Amino acid sequence: MYRTRLGGKLDGDVLAYVSSMADDAAIARHDILGSIAHTVMLSESGLVSRKDASAILGALLAIKPGSLKGGGGAEDIHELVEAKVVARAGDAGRRLHTARSRNDQVSLDIRMKLRDDINSISALAAELVGALLKVASRHTKTVMPLYTHLQHAQYGTLSHYLLAYADSLLRDIDRLASAYGRIDCSPLGASAIGGTSLKIDRRRTAGLLGFGGIAENSIDATSSRDHVAEYAADIAIMMSGLSRMAEDLVIWSTSEFAFIELGDAISSPSSVMPQKKNPDVLELTRAKAADAIGQLVSILGASKGLATGYGRDLQQAKIPAWRASQTAAGALAVMRAVILGMSVSKDGMARATSSGYLDALEVAETLVADNGVPFRDAHGVVARLVRMAHDAGVGLGELDAGQLRKAQAGIRIPKGALVRAIAQAGPQKALQRRKSRGSAGFAEQSRMLRSRTAALGAARKAISRRERVVSRAYRVLEQKARRLSSG
Amino acid sequence: MYRTRLGGKLDGDVLAYVSSMADDAAIARHDILGSIAHTVMLSESGLVSRKDASAILGALLAIKPGSLKGGGGAEDIHELVEAKVVARAGDAGRRLHTARSRNDQVSLDIRMKLRDDINSISALAAELVGALLKVASRHTKTVMPLYTHLQHAQYGTLSHYLLAYADSLLRDIDRLASAYGRIDCSPLGASAIGGTSLKIDRRRTAGLLGFGGIAENSIDATSSRDHVAEYAADIAIMMSGLSRMAEDLVIWSTSEFAFIELGDAISSPSSVMPQKKNPDVLELTRAKAADAIGQLVSILGASKGLATGYGRDLQQAKIPAWRASQTAAGALAVMRAVILGMSVSKDGMARATSSGYLDALEVAETLVADNGVPFRDAHGVVARLVRMAHDAGVGLGELDAGQLRKAQAGIRIPKGALVRAIAQAGPQKALQRRKSRGSAGFAEQSRMLRSRTAALGAARKAISRRERVVSRAYRVLEQKARRLSSG
Amino acid sequence: MYRTRLGGKLDGDVLAYVSSMADDAAIARHDILGSIAHTVMLSESGLVSRKDASAILGALLAIKPGSLKGGGGAEDIHELVEAKVVARAGDAGRRLHTARSRNDQVSLDIRMKLRDDINSISALAAELVGALLKVASRHTKTVMPLYTHLQHAQYGTLSHYLLAYADSLLRDIDRLASAYGRIDCSPLGASAIGGTSLKIDRRRTAGLLGFGGIAENSIDATSSRDHVAEYAADIAIMMSGLSRMAEDLVIWSTSEFAFIELGDAISSPSSVMPQKKNPDVLELTRAKAADAIGQLVSILGASKGLATGYGRDLQQAKIPAWRASQTAAGALAVMRAVILGMSVSKDGMARATSSGYLDALEVAETLVADNGVPFRDAHGVVARLVRMAHDAGVGLGELDAGQLRKAQAGIRIPKGALVRAIAQAGPQKALQRRKSRGSAGFAEQSRMLRSRTAALGAARKAISRRERVVSRAYRVLEQKARRLSSG
Amino acid sequence: MYRTRLGGKLDGDVLAYVSSMADDAAIARHDILGSIAHTVMLSESGLVSRKDASAILGALLAIKPGSLKGGGGAEDIHELVEAKVVARAGDAGRRLHTARSRNDQVSLDIRMKLRDDINSISALAAELVGALLKVASRHTKTVMPLYTHLQHAQYGTLSHYLLAYADSLLRDIDRLASAYGRIDCSPLGASAIGGTSLKIDRRRTAGLLGFGGIAENSIDATSSRDHVAEYAADIAIMMSGLSRMAEDLVIWSTSEFAFIELGDAISSPSSVMPQKKNPDVLELTRAKAADAIGQLVSILGASKGLATGYGRDLQQAKIPAWRASQTAAGALAVMRAVILGMSVSKDGMARATSSGYLDALEVAETLVADNGVPFRDAHGVVARLVRMAHDAGVGLGELDAGQLRKAQAGIRIPKGALVRAIAQAGPQKALQRRKSRGSAGFAEQSRMLRSRTAALGAARKAISRRERVVSRAYRVLEQKARRLSSG
Repeated sequence: MYRTRLGGKLDGDVLAYVSSMADDAAIARHDILGSIAHTVMLSESGLVSRKDASAILGALLAIKPGSLKGGGGAEDIHELVEAKVVARAGDAGRRLHTARSRNDQVSLDIRMKLRDDINSISALAAELVGALLKVASRHTKTVMPLYTHLQHAQYGTLSHYLLAYADSLLRDIDRLASAYGRIDCSPLGASAIGGTSLKIDRRRTAGLLGFGGIAENSIDATSSRDHVAEYAADIAIMMSGLSRMAEDLVIWSTSEFAFIELGDAISSPSSVMPQKKNPDVLELTRAKAADAIGQLVSILGASKGLATGYGRDLQQAKIPAWRASQTAAGALAVMRAVILGMSVSKDGMARATSSGYLDALEVAETLVADNGVPFRDAHGVVARLVRMAHDAGVGLGELDAGQLRKAQAGIRIPKGALVRAIAQAGPQKALQRRKSRGSAGFAEQSRMLRSRTAALGAARKAISRRERVVSRAYRVLEQKARRLSSG
Repeated sequence: MYRTRLGGKLDGDVLAYVSSMADDAAIARHDILGSIAHTVMLSESGLVSRKDASAILGALLAIKPGSLKGGGGAEDIHELVEAKVVARAGDAGRRLHTARSRNDQVSLDIRMKLRDDINSISALAAELVGALLKVASRHTKTVMPLYTHLQHAQYGTLSHYLLAYADSLLRDIDRLASAYGRIDCSPLGASAIGGTSLKIDRRRTAGLLGFGGIAENSIDATSSRDHVAEYAADIAIMMSGLSRMAEDLVIWSTSEFAFIELGDAISSPSSVMPQKKNPDVLELTRAKAADAIGQLVSILGASKGLATGYGRDLQQAKIPAWRASQTAAGALAVMRAVILGMSVSKDGMARATSSGYLDALEVAETLVADNGVPFRDAHGVVARLVRMAHDAGVGLGELDAGQLRKAQAGIRIPKGALVRAIAQAGPQKALQRRKSRGSAGFAEQSRMLRSRTAALGAARKAISRRERVVSRAYRVLEQKARRLSSG
Repeated sequence: MYRTRLGGKLDGDVLAYVSSMADDAAIARHDILGSIAHTVMLSESGLVSRKDASAILGALLAIKPGSLKGGGGAEDIHELVEAKVVARAGDAGRRLHTARSRNDQVSLDIRMKLRDDINSISALAAELVGALLKVASRHTKTVMPLYTHLQHAQYGTLSHYLLAYADSLLRDIDRLASAYGRIDCSPLGASAIGGTSLKIDRRRTAGLLGFGGIAENSIDATSSRDHVAEYAADIAIMMSGLSRMAEDLVIWSTSEFAFIELGDAISSPSSVMPQKKNPDVLELTRAKAADAIGQLVSILGASKGLATGYGRDLQQAKIPAWRASQTAAGALAVMRAVILGMSVSKDGMARATSSGYLDALEVAETLVADNGVPFRDAHGVVARLVRMAHDAGVGLGELDAGQLRKAQAGIRIPKGALVRAIAQAGPQKALQRRKSRGSAGFAEQSRMLRSRTAALGAARKAISRRERVVSRAYRVLEQKARRLSSG
Repeated sequence: MYRTRLGGKLDGDVLAYVSSMADDAAIARHDILGSIAHTVMLSESGLVSRKDASAILGALLAIKPGSLKGGGGAEDIHELVEAKVVARAGDAGRRLHTARSRNDQVSLDIRMKLRDDINSISALAAELVGALLKVASRHTKTVMPLYTHLQHAQYGTLSHYLLAYADSLLRDIDRLASAYGRIDCSPLGASAIGGTSLKIDRRRTAGLLGFGGIAENSIDATSSRDHVAEYAADIAIMMSGLSRMAEDLVIWSTSEFAFIELGDAISSPSSVMPQKKNPDVLELTRAKAADAIGQLVSILGASKGLATGYGRDLQQAKIPAWRASQTAAGALAVMRAVILGMSVSKDGMARATSSGYLDALEVAETLVADNGVPFRDAHGVVARLVRMAHDAGVGLGELDAGQLRKAQAGIRIPKGALVRAIAQAGPQKALQRRKSRGSAGFAEQSRMLRSRTAALGAARKAISRRERVVSRAYRVLEQKARRLSSG
């Protein structure tokens, strides 16, 4: 329709190049709702008569969002919806585009879709947190090594890892909530770039669509996409966190670590090696994190160096943003299935915990706590012990008196202190003793579980509240439209 | 020092590869302050005696952050500071590293530095907003075309552009404030990864350093860098906005547009073409936006697929984060100088406003408002008018009665309406009439100027408050340390 | 099929997450051809009987690549093709997967597809070069300013810009040809990762598929994707070049520059502003360059830090690679339409050329050439002249004798030299005189046109040669397969 | 110097923002050499007298590149070098900048530096390949599992992994060689953008500097940076490969895998956990791969959407390109030290090889080869066997006759075939039998070692040849300059 301007016809190749129809299916419903709200406002403001508004609204309500997929040669969803309205409502339909432009329309649709996506993804993230807390609650006493540099570092528990993942996800949810506030503003009425001389009421349209406010400056409202970039960044950060969880689980499910076994439903057998149970979903999660970074680059890159004012460049932001949403939703659902479906080998974990020298730091800290040995000296003594034990292929407890003496040469340590410290160093005693806030100690596990359960509840409530505001506004709006259209 | 473990010596090449000393100069002061707070807490908790604490604090207070630059063969700042303390405080110094690790230490330092950077950059951004408002206040009546697709779109004013930039920056400030809350948590006491069995008080250390809370889970506290990625994303988004402002100004200062002239202090003459005044700082701002995206990729990429638990990979996050800060600080300062120093050619803008067919939308909207013509019909009539005028090389007002008649053929428009609409369409009348909220109309310019001035004041206050919390904590901490060290 | 291993069923969500069917439509034909070649080789090597081979080949030939789109619940194209073969060829079909794995298969398909994509894209790039040369040949005397920093820099011609674009594209074609050599190696027979104990002939399969060689080491063959990253990098670089061309054309088609007008077929009218002719395709080309960078990041990021050996992470490389191809193909076709369809305003260009001080460098060089004035001195004198002329709002030729005297104060310049230099400085004279190799001078334009026409011919020949090798191999292979299947 | 144009002075902040001095130290020598070549050409072309050339060359030869680091307030190296020449050679020095511009100069310097960097990095890569081949030659019989999805896949040898790394690096070297050809062209003489009317000889300058050709079109020569992006892409791809090698080694050096132990010289002890030997250099290599991707994004992003013709944006390409070089050089050197210094635990590898079900594919292939069982059937039988063995916690050889019978139910397999196949399946027999080209079989290891040793020799020769061309040209040029300066 917009194409008829100069009598020419957009060549097929060019249309395929410029068309955003493939990406617009995702905002079909939003575009219709936005048009409904706009029409209601136009009617209330007297810019469109009751009768015309009734015809337009009837036509809009009759459109099935799902039916718009093909596009029918239209360049974008906005053009297509208007064409359908004109086809049904006739002359009245030619008033729909009063006081607006594709520029504020597309900005509106993106914001509406991102609101929905943030709410869905936050809810999925909350589900994953729930799964983590559930499994963590079963493993607050399941001892395993904590790793730094993928090397044994300290005694710990499985729940401590799972709670760390949960904390990271709670921050992701929090971050998306911050972004929500900046997205939840209606740009409608900014027109092409400079607003309109017609007497519209922008705040009314915003209210009808459940927005918290308006994106005021008309240049800014039509031309900025920083909220899309912020959203994509939040997703990339979240995916990057999930990729780390996935990497842990991939490593833990190797036959060398053998800490966990993935559920059959989410692992893939090999095409030639019948014995294998491959962690494909975890690997994909890892790679999709890279993809989320790529999509963020696509969005940020498109607006880099772009002159202010709507440019078609901005259309490209939709594709990577939608893809980011889809990636995140899939990853969260799948990771939840992984967490709930995996079986944990307490034996495997215990075996790893007893090998190596995880007691080293415990011994050193005991020397500090019980005997006032300076930490660096305690550290030095234990380093020498580990060296000896490692060379002899034994545990610290198996070193003989001569070796212990040699290890503490030159350091003032009370007689017997070292033996006592070593004797106290098993994982059970260590994790009972370890009480520093946020530590892997047993007591902290229970405390943190309680606190995160509360935090999750609060997060879920906030998400539901946002969802309710939007869904109620849409419901009320559609009722009003139906009333007006039949009036 | 850490290197002596097995008697070997780190080879020079390897040391250069692993050393972060070059990047650590920026956190030297933070590292010392963190060590002071840690020592005070250790002393209060009875883990280090008053006397030893006194010696350690004396040594810490004696270190000049600036003196640590060289590094003296140390692998990182943490090692170097501890070595200096041991050198001065002797045996007592060997107690400094009690109940902590480089892993929680470096995480602490990064958070302290990012707090400072957010505050500085927010303050600089506020200064730029101030400059924009100041210049905007002089140009609320300076008419110019508003551009979409770099084509003339609607009548507007220079202030409207400047206010759009200001709104974008106010969001950047807001975004950084959200990030601040997630950064302002102390990880100290998480130790290597699992916490400590020594009886420390993590919240006390956090309080001494002015933190709003603690990063609780010890795995999460040492191993996560999502806050660094979030910071870098916020900077990349801000730089992307500045790059758009820069692009506008580059275009406006071409001899073809000739809307503005850059101040001599910030434009560069050509090395061979004496007549040129090149907008180098604007071009650099554009390119530095791309660089900020690259640094973000570097940070996100480093944590993609990384196993949980501190890995040396995380060290790499410092370099791009610091570079992002430096880039942003420079860009904000320079763009402020550009805005304040540029001279505006009202003539150039007026000339561009009168050429082209900026009155087209005005005419169409007048037909809608005054004569109830459906927008699409009004749009069609005006499109035909513009076509005729363009072909004849004249303005809309110069078309004759026959042409007007031809243009409205088939559309019901009251006699004379089109002539009247065209007569009303100059920029002055149009911008007087245009009153939609956030529009480029004159009245909105004044209103928005007032509202943004208030918003800027509030933002400045919030930044100062954050800065005060930190600086007061540091001051109190240093006083306490001095007292204890001389006690 | 692969999913039946443990009696479980892949849950729908998980299947959607892991499935690559949507991306595999693009390699359906390659997968079938690869299976045909593999079967022929198995038969020739005696690993599969003539009869079984005949049945398998018959089944493979019967599959219509287009029919595989849906996927029918299969996880990937390899599984689907094998299932179809088993369905038709029965027991014989269960021999198709002998001595191969999905790991070498997918690597094969990607390489086959990238060969095709490189050839198509190179051909499209050559078409664009052809269009540029054609339009350049009409504009070797069309004078216009050459811009640096978007400021007037030197006299030039439109052809010089178009030839610069052509040179950049010829390098892109060259770069893709280098990549082709590294891609054109068959990985088939590497099996899962370690090869096979069955007596296959990898070089025979490679030869049947028209490959130049084999990717030998079986770990490397299945696990590396550096060639995909290289391809995506080449596309990103090419798109980045096209984005610069697009930016030039966007700027040149502003009403302020008014150097060119885009053809109606490729410009988009505004939805509210009837007079506008928006350069949407150019803007999209600009943004798609950013997208190509994003896709490259996605690919490189996925393999960063990935353990060696096939991991499902590698599946993700397909999506961004395909998208890069599609983007590039569209952009090249559209930019060609833009170049061929744009109308050039010689008047607009001439007007811009005569305003400003494009003669400054000419005057300075004339002083150097004719009077032996040191360049820096000549530069200084002209700088002063320009300053005076600019302040007075006149051209250099309009300055009076007193001003000329003042400008050369302190510099030894023969009497009258400056006047003579200024008199010689018009664009026609300057471009006649300018003869340095590769310069914008008239003579160089003709010479470069001839040389690039020859270079384009050679590039086209090389592309056709590569295409012929592949298409002939496929034809011969299908003939052989048909013979064997009916034998 | 360039700053004096309008009497103003560049403000400190702005100077810091625009200055590239910090990055220019790396091209100081190139800038001087370029100036020398330019002067020799100017003199030979009669554009500068013998006497003036002598003075200029004397001044240029007197500059110590190292002394230029500080910058002395200059904006860039080109300005600084010219200032030094003027300071020493007086009036003659003011002729140095004849017929050139900073635009072609900086492009020249970058190309000269990238030539050097490609040669150095290729040589370092060749050294790493040499180390890999050396260690591989000791381990052609060291059996270990080959991993896909980090799960046991097939029997293999350590040498097979090392040879895979070597092949990847040989491709990296090849890729850099392709890039070299596109970089090795002199842009000097393109002047600001349009060439010069002075009678210079561009090919002479190119020859003096050892270039293979010239970057002809003057717009293209000054304005394009695709070669920098290509270089950065090649580095990012190489680093991505190294990051995978690093990941393997990190995993192999966990205490769970225990395949290798890193040399003390390159592993880092923990600050609190004395027993740990952390693979920091490997982790950094992994992260630096992400950084190389980030730098590539920075370069590509800067040129995205940039108008043609030199813009200061292009300056930003230097920083990330230099950083990419430094990263790559460090990583290659360090990884070589890792490979040469690691100790291999044949026991650890053998233990892993015997656990798991690495014989599964062998058994299936034996059934295919010896008994003509369709592969899918053989695959199915073995899958059932593995399942039983796994559930019973035994190896395949320990299953009893009843189990074997049950496993092959419904499949036609000759009596005793399964037992025989299982008996043949140990790693030694399997790797002796495995002979497919490029496989992990013993015979292929020796053959590939020989072939790669030859390939390495050829690569080294090509690198040396390129280095010699450049160094000889520089030597001859400096001799000529010395002769002329003293003449």
